[in-house]
Amino acid sequence: MKYMNLSLLNEAAKFLVQYGEENGLSKDTISDRQRCVSKEIKSTGTYTHTLEEITFGAKLAWRNSTKCIGRLFWETLDVFDARHVESPDEVAHYLHQHIKHATNAGKIRSTITVFPPLKQNEPQKVQLWSPQLIRYAGYTLDNHKVIGDPACIELTKIAQKMGWKGEGGPYDLLPVIFQWKDEVPIMVPITKEEILEVQIDHPVHQNWGPLNLKWYAVPIISDRYLEIGGLRYPAPFNGWYMETEIAARNFVDSYRYNRLRDVAEHLGLDTSSTTTFWRDKALVELQHAVYASFKQAGVQIVDHYTAAQQFQTFRDKEEKQQREVKGDWTWLIPPVSPALTPIFHQGIVNEELTPNFFKQKRSSL
Amino acid sequence: MKYMNLSLLNEAAKFLVQYGEENGLSKDTISDRQRCVSKEIKSTGTYTHTLEEITFGAKLAWRNSTKCIGRLFWETLDVFDARHVESPDEVAHYLHQHIKHATNAGKIRSTITVFPPLKQNEPQKVQLWSPQLIRYAGYTLDNHKVIGDPACIELTKIAQKMGWKGEGGPYDLLPVIFQWKDEVPIMVPITKEEILEVQIDHPVHQNWGPLNLKWYAVPIISDRYLEIGGLRYPAPFNGWYMETEIAARNFVDSYRYNRLRDVAEHLGLDTSSTTTFWRDKALVELQHAVYASFKQAGVQIVDHYTAAQQFQTFRDKEEKQQREVKGDWTWLIPPVSPALTPIFHQGIVNEELTPNFFKQKRSSL
Ligand code: HEM
Ligand code: HEM
Repeated sequence: MKYMNLSLLNEAAKFLVQYGEENGLSKDTISDRQRCVSKEIKSTGTYTHTLEEITFGAKLAWRNSTKCIGRLFWETLDVFDARHVESPDEVAHYLHQHIKHATNAGKIRSTITVFPPLKQNEPQKVQLWSPQLIRYAGYTLDNHKVIGDPACIELTKIAQKMGWKGEGGPYDLLPVIFQWKDEVPIMVPITKEEILEVQIDHPVHQNWGPLNLKWYAVPIISDRYLEIGGLRYPAPFNGWYMETEIAARNFVDSYRYNRLRDVAEHLGLDTSSTTTFWRDKALVELQHAVYASFKQAGVQIVDHYTAAQQFQTFRDKEEKQQREVKGDWTWLIPPVSPALTPIFHQGIVNEELTPNFFKQKRSSL
Repeated sequence: MKYMNLSLLNEAAKFLVQYGEENGLSKDTISDRQRCVSKEIKSTGTYTHTLEEITFGAKLAWRNSTKCIGRLFWETLDVFDARHVESPDEVAHYLHQHIKHATNAGKIRSTITVFPPLKQNEPQKVQLWSPQLIRYAGYTLDNHKVIGDPACIELTKIAQKMGWKGEGGPYDLLPVIFQWKDEVPIMVPITKEEILEVQIDHPVHQNWGPLNLKWYAVPIISDRYLEIGGLRYPAPFNGWYMETEIAARNFVDSYRYNRLRDVAEHLGLDTSSTTTFWRDKALVELQHAVYASFKQAGVQIVDHYTAAQQFQTFRDKEEKQQREVKGDWTWLIPPVSPALTPIFHQGIVNEELTPNFFKQKRSSL
């Protein structure tokens, strides 16, 4: 406990200095705030961020996310303060509100909702079990085939154990599952009405209806902690999609929807041999289709080439501020034509600064 | 010198054990050979590999090359022993012979030629300055445009200083430049007649003549040392090409031939916006064209998907021998559709074992 507090004191002090300096606060103001926080930690074991601190801290966490290519826009994050929720219903309210605010009829807003922080010797108030607020169920059939998203088989089973019944289709919306304190987990149904989905068609080689490819508009990651100044908050966040996430991974990975061959056959490509390059050709048409369908539906999305250019601009801007951008090369390069982007050709230091997002271990059913 | 010898003794012993064990030699035979080598090192400061040791050592160096996706075939390396060369002419002879043996009218043979090892307190006998035995010149024009291969501008200038005159075209064969002992560097002309080149056309969207894309058949890397048991040999080596090396890097990198836009325009793609995905589409057609043209010309080449599968087989085979394959993920993933290969989805330990190939610092003109 003593040790914990010391490290918390240090982390808090470090963050308060960074917060103060980047926001042009005077030395006095900063050290006043530090004194105040130290006192609070010494008497209560923890401390409370101001709304401004938590807002700026969340933006810094995004700026520091080594795996994120979308960081140029780190200052435009909308932060909802849900630290004061007192019941599961309030949590559900904030989850729905996050979806609504972020979706914004397709003009997606980068958003984060900050739930109560973890505290020593207290049960965690809110623990989100779902990896994203919007997810499609995955069902294993008797013949070991999977309907839906194989990434969600476990979550689907948990929901089913809790009494949820899916329709058995490829795109059944799962409820969000979360735990309130030590209680049994709770399901929050997510309805088709409150989300946006995009049916995928190809702008040139049309008639993709029979392929039945669709995806939801907003990826809202919900299994990370937001760490600011030594405190850890459950905090779902979202940006908008880069097309490869859907079109090169979700639809294509052999352990996800695995639809590449279907797409190639639908395009009439010669799939009899690897060396017709049908995989690469189908993959690129799929990028085009997903991108164009989102645009057509008025849903914000970015292509990987533009995203890489934006990342370059981010690096340039940061360097002008004497801040070296950290990054995880293996995540930052897009999985389609990576060598066409400058990221591929440059080194980048892979180091985790705080504030940041960290993966959280979940209790199990 | 004492210290140097100790480390040489250790490296030699380590290699001799590995050599002996992997080749089923008895414990006695191995320790006899170790004793013999120790004596030689103690009296002469160095030692001499048998032909068998150097042959096996070179294969191990390939097997240990963390950046190489082509390692399934590590046992099929043809090794030429050129340790006894006594003159620049003999070096030139071995270089021509390497090209001839490796090229083999298109049925490319993985080949390595081993030149005399570096020795303490003696000038290095053979020092290859050229990064590959076959290379195209690069000329900077007054308007800063480049004709030919921008990667070879420096080497071209060196050749020009030495009296070489290129034709100023995009695919002028550079001479091989090497140094014999402390003498001034020497040029070995490489003629069109002794090499193979492939003119690139597309098997479906034909008529790529106006694009004037061609490449040589065999990449013979010549600026690495082969290190075996503490000794370092200049040793050019080659395999055959994977199509991406030519079609996603040499022709495409903005700091190489930079021809992607030309290809896209020739294909009639709409290059007015990034989000027609013209870059990715042109890139894939270029893979197809390079691959098919090589095949059509009877020149061995492998596509990146097949190469990745072969690498997987290599990993499986090695694991059966209880050997963990080391690798550099950032090099092993192909630069086209990497997520379609298993390599992308797996971790791999990046560690340099010896024997191996190491980059060599070159003296400068
Ligand atoms: C605004 C548009 C955004 C785009 C286009 C974008 C793009 C991406 C992409 C392509 C990835 C890699 C995903 C994968 O391969 O699974 C990623 C990862 C990540 N992004 Fe962003 N992002 C955006 C907004 C945000 C926001 C608002 C945050 C946080 C406030 C954020 C934090 C992260 C984090 C923490 C990861 C790593 C996720 C993980 O470990 O699984 N991003 N982003
Ligand atoms: C037989 C067919 C072969 C194929 C298809 C192949 C494929 C490749 C590829 C695609 C690369 C990456 C090149 C780059 O991105 O610049 C590579 C690198 C490498 N390969 Fe292989 N390879 C083959 C044979 C060999 C042989 C025979 C050796 C040595 C005996 C070798 C040793 C290496 C080394 C040392 C590298 C790293 C080169 C560097 O650091 O620039 N490979 N290989």
